[in-house]
Amino acid sequence: MQMVDIIAKKRDGHALSRQEIDDFVQGFTRGEIPDYQAAALLMAIVLKGMDAQETADLTDAMTHSGQTVDLSAVGDVVCDKHSTGGVGDTTTLILVPLAAACGLKMAKMSGRGLGHTGGTLDKLESIPGYRVEISPETLVQLVRDNGAAIVGQTQALAPADKKLYALRDVTGTVESLPLIASSVMSKKLAAGTDVIVLDVKTGSGAFMHTVEDSFALARTMVDIGAHLGKRIAAIVTDMDQPLGNSIGNALDVREAIEILQGRHVDSPLREVCLLLGEQLLRMTGKAQTSVQARAMLEQALRNGDALEKMRVMIQAQGGDARVCEDVSLLGQASIIHPVVAPQSGYVARMQAAEIGMAAQMLGAGRMKKEDVIDPLVGIQMHVRVGDFVEKGQPLADFYLNDTAQAEQAEHRFLQAIVMQDHKPVAVPLVFGVVRAEGEERFFDA
Amino acid sequence: MQMVDIIAKKRDGHALSRQEIDDFVQGFTRGEIPDYQAAALLMAIVLKGMDAQETADLTDAMTHSGQTVDLSAVGDVVCDKHSTGGVGDTTTLILVPLAAACGLKMAKMSGRGLGHTGGTLDKLESIPGYRVEISPETLVQLVRDNGAAIVGQTQALAPADKKLYALRDVTGTVESLPLIASSVMSKKLAAGTDVIVLDVKTGSGAFMHTVEDSFALARTMVDIGAHLGKRIAAIVTDMDQPLGNSIGNALDVREAIEILQGRHVDSPLREVCLLLGEQLLRMTGKAQTSVQARAMLEQALRNGDALEKMRVMIQAQGGDARVCEDVSLLGQASIIHPVVAPQSGYVARMQAAEIGMAAQMLGAGRMKKEDVIDPLVGIQMHVRVGDFVEKGQPLADFYLNDTAQAEQAEHRFLQAIVMQDHKPVAVPLVFGVVRAEGEERFFDA
Repeated sequence: MQMVDIIAKKRDGHALSRQEIDDFVQGFTRGEIPDYQAAALLMAIVLKGMDAQETADLTDAMTHSGQTVDLSAVGDVVCDKHSTGGVGDTTTLILVPLAAACGLKMAKMSGRGLGHTGGTLDKLESIPGYRVEISPETLVQLVRDNGAAIVGQTQALAPADKKLYALRDVTGTVESLPLIASSVMSKKLAAGTDVIVLDVKTGSGAFMHTVEDSFALARTMVDIGAHLGKRIAAIVTDMDQPLGNSIGNALDVREAIEILQGRHVDSPLREVCLLLGEQLLRMTGKAQTSVQARAMLEQALRNGDALEKMRVMIQAQGGDARVCEDVSLLGQASIIHPVVAPQSGYVARMQAAEIGMAAQMLGAGRMKKEDVIDPLVGIQMHVRVGDFVEKGQPLADFYLNDTAQAEQAEHRFLQAIVMQDHKPVAVPLVFGVVRAEGEERFFDA
Repeated sequence: MQMVDIIAKKRDGHALSRQEIDDFVQGFTRGEIPDYQAAALLMAIVLKGMDAQETADLTDAMTHSGQTVDLSAVGDVVCDKHSTGGVGDTTTLILVPLAAACGLKMAKMSGRGLGHTGGTLDKLESIPGYRVEISPETLVQLVRDNGAAIVGQTQALAPADKKLYALRDVTGTVESLPLIASSVMSKKLAAGTDVIVLDVKTGSGAFMHTVEDSFALARTMVDIGAHLGKRIAAIVTDMDQPLGNSIGNALDVREAIEILQGRHVDSPLREVCLLLGEQLLRMTGKAQTSVQARAMLEQALRNGDALEKMRVMIQAQGGDARVCEDVSLLGQASIIHPVVAPQSGYVARMQAAEIGMAAQMLGAGRMKKEDVIDPLVGIQMHVRVGDFVEKGQPLADFYLNDTAQAEQAEHRFLQAIVMQDHKPVAVPLVFGVVRAEGEERFFDA
């Protein structure tokens, strides 16, 4: 079929066949289908949608547009985790060793950050010596031997997605459930794991701003995975305020290590990690019930097994594992500047993305690919929504090495914290779980 | 505003401002906006539409994307005519001298044909010596002195339309009322006339296949013209069968001359020309009523004034005007091959486009730009829908110089003529008139 006929078919609201989707993805990846035809099809997809079968077919075609990772030599089912991205979101650094401590094989490929904070790779590289550029062969060996590895995603995975994403970004075709979901899932599927848990963030600091949109994205991604034979579940969690207390790179690693040390038992970041781990333990059959899964995870945090897995993983990837006992080895920024409440009152809301942007201004994230991240800078939060603060009490500490943008960053940060004089309604942390066979909502919409 | 924001605005169903439309059209014409962004916007326009103001703004922006013709030196209102294109449609060759004979100034810029038959320029070039490449200055002089000129459209008119059309053709974005209408109208408006009559064809041989779609296109084009200060009207006419009896180039000129000689008084081609002329006479105030307008037009055909205008126009453009008395000077194909009815019965329907394609196979039209037209070949029809024919009676004569594709063309032609044994319901020739202030439908839909 000619590309112009494929475009017209979608324009007229019809479902595309597997063959048509393959022709498009393969032709576009090889450069045989020009950008302008791809752009027209993408806009037709944005406005006419894709059904579950088409979305799975598109994902599968993108997955196979380049190399795929073969993890069969691990000799066990291999698990993966993905977050749609938020502020103060360090779940990967905790979940990977934690789940490994419960007997799972965790192989996580991560990207670098672009936007409000560094990505998981940037965070790990704040550990002296930690190497993220690991070959697929070594990845298999690390996962088989240690149960846990977090490595850089090779450029060769799902090249169609990379090329399509670049085009979507400049043609107003980013916002489409099937396109967003297939983009995420094609990279996950190319990474070769068997069991996947997704953390779909919702709120001001997330890609999806409403709970409904977030559940719809979660459902679309879970359906893709299920269609393509994966065990998969998603949780929908709040991103109206930073998840953890740290927004930075070394600061995030420190917080992760402290949780793996058994500290911060009331932390929302810890709670989300437990919930993600619970899904993996149940999908792999390591636990039969939620209660059993949580007990296993809590125990691994308490008895030091999770921290030990972190130590082994860091060491295996060339890092200084002593950071697990002594977080000061991560280093510290030269200036700690408290940002204080300009008035007394309750924290009513936060603009999480704006707080992330303030951290970026301090040097914790990249605006452009070429920007260099300072691993030691960032923001350490002292309040959460619902807290009461006196005027002059610190809302956060800024960790700085360079004061150039500190004033603007502080202004931006303060603008992002909305205060009021009465206690606000409590905000949920977890909205629900989406599984292939159905979903469970913890709150009414 | 950034192009990606303009795309997103249309994607989300909002109306674009004049400034946004100008930024797009100018940027695209200058090559600053890449094809892929234009393609995404075009698809969003196809699926989300444009209101009357946006459509007029788009047309005006395209009109001013290059040169415009200044006809003010004619010293009178100047009229134009446009047909959306059909088979056996030679109205221009009749209407231009006919309206000029009634005192109007007719300046018609035409294109070459691509598709089933030659365009008006190809037809005129079958008159020995006729020149169509005329400068705008000479055009003004011809119209001022003679009241009538039919010349080639300069490449510099509405370059944005040319570039957009090429992109639409390969991105499945042809079928959109605002895009079709603005494409036609931008060229008309750049040609600088004051009064425009449109012939919107409907049926199997037309761009628009249904009467409803044809009225909608007529309405959109009339609204654009009215928005931009033109006097404009459209008629919607049948194209389920060829309009005239000739499908070719010299054959079409011959039929036009015969009508201008006062012959074929019952011909549908003549009737459509009268109706088009009537709109022009009424819009220019040369006639107050329909009856008065028709009387003027009929008289010009009867008393030889229309034929005299044709003679003057041909002579002024270097052609051999003696063809007006002796059509044999146009030449004749070497073979006349009758195509006979394979069975007795009534002609129930025709596939007009297929008949056009059969004529093209004989050499009367171009498939590719480079193809050379044979001016003498074509099809002379002997039947219309509703006629009864005996088996073996000629349905048409094929005029040939080369028999290479004659057999396939005959097969194609016969497939396009549907016969039945009872008399079919009569088909209307004219469905209605669309004016700025309202419309008149001659038949219920």
